[in-house]
Parts: sequence; C-alpha cells; structure tokens
Amino acid sequence: MLNLLLQGGNVLCADGQVRQMDLAIEGSIITQIGTVSNTAERVIDCHNKLIIPGFVNTHTHAAMTLFRSYADDMQLMDWLKTKIWPAEENLTADDVYWGTQLAIAEMLKSGTTCFADMYFFMPEVAKAVAESGIRAVLARGMAGVAPTANQALAESENFYKEWHNAANGRITIMLGPHAPYTCPPDYLKKVTALAEKLGAQIHIHLSETLQEVSDCNKQYGKSPIALMEEIGLLDYGVLAAHCVHVSQEDIAIMKGKQVRVAHNPGSNMKLASGVAPVPDMLNAGLCVGLGTDGAASNNNLDMLEELRLAAMLHKVHRLDPVAIPASTAVQMATAQGANALSLGSSIGKLEPTYKADITIFDMQQPHWYPQHDSLSLLTYAASGRDVHTVIVDGKILLENRQLTTIDEERLLEEVNRRGIRLVNPV
Amino acid sequence: MLNLLLQGGNVLCADGQVRQMDLAIEGSIITQIGTVSNTAERVIDCHNKLIIPGFVNTHTHAAMTLFRSYADDMQLMDWLKTKIWPAEENLTADDVYWGTQLAIAEMLKSGTTCFADMYFFMPEVAKAVAESGIRAVLARGMAGVAPTANQALAESENFYKEWHNAANGRITIMLGPHAPYTCPPDYLKKVTALAEKLGAQIHIHLSETLQEVSDCNKQYGKSPIALMEEIGLLDYGVLAAHCVHVSQEDIAIMKGKQVRVAHNPGSNMKLASGVAPVPDMLNAGLCVGLGTDGAASNNNLDMLEELRLAAMLHKVHRLDPVAIPASTAVQMATAQGANALSLGSSIGKLEPTYKADITIFDMQQPHWYPQHDSLSLLTYAASGRDVHTVIVDGKILLENRQLTTIDEERLLEEVNRRGIRLVNPV
Repeated sequence: MLNLLLQGGNVLCADGQVRQMDLAIEGSIITQIGTVSNTAERVIDCHNKLIIPGFVNTHTHAAMTLFRSYADDMQLMDWLKTKIWPAEENLTADDVYWGTQLAIAEMLKSGTTCFADMYFFMPEVAKAVAESGIRAVLARGMAGVAPTANQALAESENFYKEWHNAANGRITIMLGPHAPYTCPPDYLKKVTALAEKLGAQIHIHLSETLQEVSDCNKQYGKSPIALMEEIGLLDYGVLAAHCVHVSQEDIAIMKGKQVRVAHNPGSNMKLASGVAPVPDMLNAGLCVGLGTDGAASNNNLDMLEELRLAAMLHKVHRLDPVAIPASTAVQMATAQGANALSLGSSIGKLEPTYKADITIFDMQQPHWYPQHDSLSLLTYAASGRDVHTVIVDGKILLENRQLTTIDEERLLEEVNRRGIRLVNPV
Repeated sequence: MLNLLLQGGNVLCADGQVRQMDLAIEGSIITQIGTVSNTAERVIDCHNKLIIPGFVNTHTHAAMTLFRSYADDMQLMDWLKTKIWPAEENLTADDVYWGTQLAIAEMLKSGTTCFADMYFFMPEVAKAVAESGIRAVLARGMAGVAPTANQALAESENFYKEWHNAANGRITIMLGPHAPYTCPPDYLKKVTALAEKLGAQIHIHLSETLQEVSDCNKQYGKSPIALMEEIGLLDYGVLAAHCVHVSQEDIAIMKGKQVRVAHNPGSNMKLASGVAPVPDMLNAGLCVGLGTDGAASNNNLDMLEELRLAAMLHKVHRLDPVAIPASTAVQMATAQGANALSLGSSIGKLEPTYKADITIFDMQQPHWYPQHDSLSLLTYAASGRDVHTVIVDGKILLENRQLTTIDEERLLEEVNRRGIRLVNPV
C-alpha cells in the first residue's frame, strides 16, 4: 500500500508539460506518475490544483528575516555599516535558530522545499532544518578579513563532519567563503585546501556590485571570476551567488569550470546592484537557479516572486519580450535550482525515483482564471500565498495552508520580541 | 450610532505615518480617526491588521482577464495580430460583463477599491461596477482608424450622459481615445470638441513604445506628447497611460498641462516596453499613479505587485537604491492614484470627510514579522493575498477574504467557459 496518493492534479512533468494525472509516494520517494490504481494510506484530492516540484531557493541568509523591515531605501554601505552589521553583532545562537525557523515557515508557506543558506551559528540552522523537515544546503559564512577567520575554517570543518548528509540526507554542507572582497587570496587558498580535504563544494558571493568588480580589477588586475579561477577555487564545484557584473570572458570561465549561478533578481533590484546577464548565461549553457537572498534585502523569501521577476526583468532590460519565457523561469526555480545545489539527480523533477519534494497550488481563485495555460498562470498571475500543500522527503509539512511541524503562533511572538531587541539592545 | 467601527488597527494616516487607532464610518464617509468611543452597529477588531486607503488602479482593460494566460512570451505585434485582436473580435457584450466581474473580483480580493478602465461594451462594464459596489472611472475606447470611429464618439457621449456620477457617485466617465497611433489628429480634434461639450476628461495611451514615438516623430515631426499639446487635447484634464518614452521636454509640457500619469511597471516589463522615467516625473512635480494594465499583458490585477515593482524597478534601472522609497510607492498606489483620476478630494486618504474606501491587511503571517516598519512590510514583503477586508463607499465588499456581492463559484465557471470559447470559436 502506498503512503500517499495525489489524485487528479495538474502535474508539471519532467518534459515541461502539464498533464492531469495521479502521483504516488512511498516513503520519501515518488514511485508512480500517471493513472495510479493502488490504494494508499492517505489520498489527497488534487482536482483544480497545480502540482510542481518544490521551489529550490539557491541563495539566502535565512536568519536575516529578523531584520526584515528594519532598514530599507538606503545607500548600500550606509545600510550595512549603520544598520545591518551593528544589529548582527547582537545576534545570539538562539536568535539564529528562531530567525531560521521564521524563514523556514515563510518558505514552506510559499512553496519552497529546499534552500541554500550562508550564515553563522550554523549548527542552530541545521537544528531548525532537521526539526522542521525542510531540505537545505548549509554553509558557515567565512570572512578572511574578520578576527574569526581561522575559527570559521575550523567551525566549517566540524560542521561538515557533523551534518553533511544528516537528517535522512536532507542536509548537505558546503564551505561558505563570503566573497573575494572579504576573503583575500591567501585565505581562499586555505578554503580550497579544506574543500580538497573534505570533498566539499563551495558557496560564495561573486561579482554582485560594480564597486566589487572595479576594486578587484584595481587590486588584482582581473575580475573576481578570473581571480577565483587563478586561486583554484572554481575547481571544487562552486555555487556563485549574484554574478551581476560578469563579462563574456567571465561567462566562458564559468562555463569551463561548470560554476552554477544563484540569480537573485529581487535583491539585485532592491539594492540597485544591477541586472545580471542571465540570458547570456543560459545561452552559454550555464546552470542558473533562483534565490531570494536574505529578507533584509528582498524583503521576503517568496520564490514565486523571484520566478516572476526573472521572467519580467530581463524582458524590459533587453527590450526583448521573449527573453526568459515562463517555461524557462519555472525550470530555473525548480530543476535548475536543484542542479545548482548539486541535487539534480534527486530533487527538482516529478519523476519516479526522485525525492517527493512537492508543492501544490490551489487554482480556485479569480487570478487563476480562465485556465488557458497553467505555467503561464503560475509564472505571471499566481501568488506564493496560493500554495495549499507542501511535501518534503515524502512528509506533508504544509497542509491546507497550515504548518504541521512548526508552532506558528509561538514562532511569530518569539521573532517579534527578538527582532525588536536586536535593533534596540539594552 | 455609527454604521461601522474599525477598532485598534494600524492606520496609515494622511501624513504618511502609521498609528494604532480606531476609524469610524457613517454611511459612505469616514467620520472619525483616533480614539473613538461611540457605539457602532458593527465593530471589526483590527488588532494586528494594517488599514490603508484602498488601492487605486489607474489603468486597466478589465474584461481582458478573459485572455489571461492565453498568449505570452511573444513579440508585441505578433501577439496582437495573431492572438489578442482576433480573440477580441469574438467578444460579446455578455463576455465583457463577465470578464469585468472577474476583474472586479480579483481587484477586490487584492485590495483595489477603484479602477480606471478603457474598453468597449462599456454599459456592461458600468453594470458590473454598479452591481459589485466597487468604484470606477470608465472610458469607451475609441480608435479613429477603425470603421467604428464615429459610432464610438456617439457611444461615448451617450455613455457619459447615462453613467457619469451614477451609482451614488461611484462611477465617473472619461473619454477614451485609444492612442495617437490609432487616432489621427482630425479624430482627436473631434474628441476634444466632445470633451469641451460634455466637460469630460480624457484617458489615453501615450508614448508606450519606442516604435510609437519614432513613428510619430517621422509622421508629425514631434513626440506624441507634443502632438497632443498642439491638437489641444491636453487642455481637458488628461490621464495618460504609460509615458515610457518621454523626454525632458515632454515632461515639461505634461507639467504645464497638469497631465496625470498612469505608470504600469508590470506591463512595461512583461511587454518589454521600457522603463518610464518616473523619478524624473516625480521630481518635476507630476502626479503619477499606478496601474496594472489589462490581464493579458501583466497577467494579474494585483496593485501590490505594481507598488513593489515601482519601488524596485527604478532602483535597479538607475543603480540608485533610494529611488522611489516605500512611502512614495504607497502614495502612488493610493493618494496619487486618486489624484490621477481627479478623485483626490474624496478618496485616496484616510481622513474625516473622505469616502470610506478602505483595505485591511492581515499581518498575522510569517512574512509580516518582525514588525519593525509597517510600510516597509507592505511595500517589500506583503502579498495581495494578505488582504482580509475591503470597504468601498462605506460598504463591506470583502469580508474575511470572501466576496459579499459576487457569487465567485458561478463567476469562475462562467469565465472559464467563455475564455475557452473566445480563443476557440466554433
């Protein structure tokens, strides 16, 4: 007998087509798609629902939800120096646990089943992931210029050893050197040595702002991407966040080294970082997933917004109404996102043998009508708040819009208290 | 005794500040804001809710909801000629009625209390507005190059006489010459003569695409804005949709003639029209409201998305993180929108003597926490689907997310049947 049967939904199949069919789950795995006649412990009626692979958020700093709405509409360095960094100084391990739970609650409620995080107090993040049931790829952020530089390397190694492949494989670990402008070459060489030793991949911010690229060119005579190649960092499997200001030469290097990109259109817009050349990256055959970045610079963790922005921003930026069509944007938010996190053989598609990481949208709302094309409705009309049910690793974590593993009322009280304390320390 | 008392909500006051207070309504009017001790027929507990003036959608083609998701990711003229125009040929008066009801249902559920529409079969649109209880500024679209050019003028005059200030003043009428490229100067002079005769204002598309501006310059030796000035069209109170490709000289003309702008960032992005110089318009002191445009080019009618896009698109386009801050974007979606429709003395603000057109957001969701700043949460984190209650002209049209004047189930059935028939005529 099956554990779970999703009956009669509109299923986004691995070939990109949407078909009305059933989907069967045993344990953590999708076992059948089509007409399923087996009995099941639990049957969910999915008529007038759209069933897609859960969104994969390829870049965030989950606990920064605590700073949501604290400071906006400021110049970047002013914002970081007078607001975000001082507030982060006040963070405790407990704050990071609760801020991460808030992020997970928000992500599950808007259809995200897996996220890539870079922050600190990472064992607390792993604990929140393990408890909540979501999937995550975690990295301890490391800044070579900080007094904690060596401690961060040691913590990263311990964190990898303790948590890589933990929680039924839901948690994997990467190394998280923050960025070239916070990690000098000597430090990055220590990071690559650690990557070599552990067999770990790397999550890093690259070429986010014009200033960063210009400074890097002045200091090292080459772009951040070219500098990373020279250091050897690109040889260990790299997830590169942002890549806004990359040249054709940079893209060629990235292609050669199979660098995967986390594109964060919402953050890039709000922080005025610029528009990444995503159509060029896709044309070059790069893997590009989507990310929300942290909630201080977005200000939400709603992947459907990123999907829509990816489909719309590049159209207006290039004055090309066929740049990044709906189907491509949906792939970026799901299968390509899974590839970006090196999880493409187990999540990101609805196919037998894949993990049952699934998001179900309720289509019974005015903005989902008429129903000429489900993927167009998802991309250009739907809301993250239309998410009805979310399944991760075969377990229902959101059911009829209610979280099953998180006490939401207590969570919201906790984070409000903590958020206010962080920006007004006694 | 008051009709309605909103108790203890976070109220966006006319000075732009959010304060916890009560708001009292008698008949269609806001009568008190502050601490209200009167008894009321009906009290709504608004703790942990954000109360704002209802969104004003300054430009749409409501019944085009019927074409939502029918055709996307196409070149503009290909899209119009092979998809939209042929499908519009099949529209009946009944279709327009139902398509408009769908738009109204969607707008109410996402917090819009007033919209400016330009389409045809307009008496059906007025009927849908009157029945649903929403507020609207309606214009019969007129194309001077069409065989129906003179009929459209006659219909516009009759429509104005029959419906201007109807439905307790909820409906006002403008004249709707479509655009300079579909209305030659001689025809526009007939429109201005009719505006003069009726005392009617004008709703028109201006300078939406580069092609339009370039063609106008070739044909007439001046920009669409300058051509409209020469014709005298700008002397009658003009709501100009788009204004994407306007020069500093155009902006000076618009300022001189007090042209009000309907900025449609979502449509401009999806159709790759370009980025309107909104910060320049605002610096020049122009009135700029926000609009969704029709659902075929957006593809939803969610004003909160437009508000967010307005706050984010201009930041990235100008690489300026302080372009259009949250408070300005909220004003554009409310008070400035009301001004754009010439309704600024009666709607768009929460103040005694103003009409009770009110949208109430439920803040009890993870993406609304922590609550450092309500306007930032609204602008950068909230969803149109967080709208809990909507009041228009003192009447509750959405209550706990349920429409009170529209049978939603029947509506969705109707529009799906009609939408499919329109694109697959027998």
